[in-house]
Amino acid sequence: MKPNTLEERYQIGLENLAKIDGQAGHDVIESLKSIAPDMAQYVIGFPFGEIYNRGGLDLRSREIATISALCALGTIPQLKVHIRASLNVGLSKEEIIEIFMQMAIYCGFPKALNAIFAAKEVFEGT
Amino acid sequence: MKPNTLEERYQIGLENLAKIDGQAGHDVIESLKSIAPDMAQYVIGFPFGEIYNRGGLDLRSREIATISALCALGTIPQLKVHIRASLNVGLSKEEIIEIFMQMAIYCGFPKALNAIFAAKEVFEGT
Amino acid sequence: MKPNTLEERYQIGLENLAKIDGQAGHDVIESLKSIAPDMAQYVIGFPFGEIYNRGGLDLRSREIATISALCALGTIPQLKVHIRASLNVGLSKEEIIEIFMQMAIYCGFPKALNAIFAAKEVFEGT
Amino acid sequence: MKPNTLEERYQIGLENLAKIDGQAGHDVIESLKSIAPDMAQYVIGFPFGEIYNRGGLDLRSREIATISALCALGTIPQLKVHIRASLNVGLSKEEIIEIFMQMAIYCGFPKALNAIFAAKEVFEGT
Amino acid sequence: MKPNTLEERYQIGLENLAKIDGQAGHDVIESLKSIAPDMAQYVIGFPFGEIYNRGGLDLRSREIATISALCALGTIPQLKVHIRASLNVGLSKEEIIEIFMQMAIYCGFPKALNAIFAAKEVFEGT
Amino acid sequence: MKPNTLEERYQIGLENLAKIDGQAGHDVIESLKSIAPDMAQYVIGFPFGEIYNRGGLDLRSREIATISALCALGTIPQLKVHIRASLNVGLSKEEIIEIFMQMAIYCGFPKALNAIFAAKEVFEGT
Repeated sequence: MKPNTLEERYQIGLENLAKIDGQAGHDVIESLKSIAPDMAQYVIGFPFGEIYNRGGLDLRSREIATISALCALGTIPQLKVHIRASLNVGLSKEEIIEIFMQMAIYCGFPKALNAIFAAKEVFEGT
Repeated sequence: MKPNTLEERYQIGLENLAKIDGQAGHDVIESLKSIAPDMAQYVIGFPFGEIYNRGGLDLRSREIATISALCALGTIPQLKVHIRASLNVGLSKEEIIEIFMQMAIYCGFPKALNAIFAAKEVFEGT
Repeated sequence: MKPNTLEERYQIGLENLAKIDGQAGHDVIESLKSIAPDMAQYVIGFPFGEIYNRGGLDLRSREIATISALCALGTIPQLKVHIRASLNVGLSKEEIIEIFMQMAIYCGFPKALNAIFAAKEVFEGT
Repeated sequence: MKPNTLEERYQIGLENLAKIDGQAGHDVIESLKSIAPDMAQYVIGFPFGEIYNRGGLDLRSREIATISALCALGTIPQLKVHIRASLNVGLSKEEIIEIFMQMAIYCGFPKALNAIFAAKEVFEGT
Repeated sequence: MKPNTLEERYQIGLENLAKIDGQAGHDVIESLKSIAPDMAQYVIGFPFGEIYNRGGLDLRSREIATISALCALGTIPQLKVHIRASLNVGLSKEEIIEIFMQMAIYCGFPKALNAIFAAKEVFEGT
Repeated sequence: MKPNTLEERYQIGLENLAKIDGQAGHDVIESLKSIAPDMAQYVIGFPFGEIYNRGGLDLRSREIATISALCALGTIPQLKVHIRASLNVGLSKEEIIEIFMQMAIYCGFPKALNAIFAAKEVFEGT
């Protein structure tokens, strides 16, 4: 369902986020509550209520795109959230590692290695 | 087939590159011939003879990862090569645009827009 | 006025964009029409219908933040749009140049110089 | 006063740095003393003795530019120093958060969120 | 000796890595063993078995290039490995600091300072 | 000679810049004259009057560091200036290409290729 109001967008965003990583959705709202409560509305509303909610690309493909971009950007906390999300939407651990090995070509070995070590921490539950 | 020698790696790399974008393979060898001929060996050998040659991840997924990382890095010439490659391995134009719209979340709107304009040029054959 | 529906957001976004750079608003819709029409909705809706529409920070401060970030990112087309927008919301040419000279400290001289040359093109109307 | 000698530049730099964040000025000199004492001369001399010392742009505007660029670059230790400096030159906590929410548009949500979490630590005095 | 097979490349890579930082070579193999054992083959094989193994540029020059690029990229763990390697191939501590002070010009002061603090930790053996 | 006044710094900067790339020094002053004349003072004064003027690291090593960082940053106009400067301080064309081939390891192949193509243009005098 495509949202009509911004309130619907938030509810749809929460539902979509729950499908890929429910705990992360809860955590981001909690962590922003005291400092930037409106930011939680945007983080849940725009990415998950609008973009991830679109048809035209499966969630597996969306998560491949996301972890690749986050590897390039080097933002490890968000990369770890989306490594977990990648597992939740059906990517195997082996596929995630393949993606990061491929990233050595485009982003260089240091960024690829840091992504692999982030994956190691997620897979080990730390 | 996994290469054993570096010469085999180059041949396998040429074959793999031909599958995703034969013209680009030819172009990179030509453009490097006068300035850095060994670099052509590495560009074809390591990415396409070793990494893309691995099992464990389909070419469609590999190209999604590549165009997402290149959008984040902002290296437009290589992004255009891999937008063409993405079409060749079965991504639709609509899926490619979906990926770049999603990149607005992670890389910001400017990088996402520049990727969309690169896609426009590729789709229009310019 | 805070938007309630996504349609209102788009209309408010168009109005806000008209205040800072009306031509750019028109151009982005035109350039995306044939390739990614939904992206025009997001580009106008989220940044200008939601973020720039918030109270709590004047437009002058918002444009200082934007051109500084775009200088760091090195995305010249969007930087030029927002140099024009900075002039429109009341920054002087001298202030814009001051900002980019300061950027030499944080982003290095190459990015600062490229931003100054972008400003030169905007100021000369090219 | 515009410095004439490099020694004057250093003294003026110390004074300017004291106005925006005196503790940070002291800390950077201490931390560089054993490893790169000349670097302390440059860090205080060029940015604060020359650039911040120029007329033509108020300190509030200068700090908005700085924290926006540092958000884009993702260098958290320096970002925290300048979040403190932003408070010292008169930006409110709410305005700083507004700036980082706006950064989601240009730098993407991950960099914006990391800046907000850095602000949270500064505001809480940790 | 130029490798002919990929197995030779790995052995040559191990030898070259031992010359510049033997402990790091051992560590990377260990850290990747459980998560991405093939990546260790690439990390040792391509950079150290092929590129560093080429004639035409001395190891001192290669390490200057590497620590400068890693300073620009901001990937601290790999920067620390190559600061150690720089010492091992004959760069003095003073030369390494000179390089990072120069990086303030091109990458900005924050990245330069973070590299200097990384060097401080390496020099102090932490 | 170490400068004492900012005026001396500028004169020393001009002399140092003339040693590595006299035409570039003239060009940067000309190009900034109408838009940011003070910036020319900083560009010549701080990098070339202070940093490059320091002892402790030879010009060859300084240029290796510079072109490596500029390859990582992807700022092509400045990279081309410093490829010319590298030739002027004694690096051979082959060494410059070696450096950029090595950059494929750390910055990824796209940035390395773009640097090699920039070198091609400089070497061919275009």
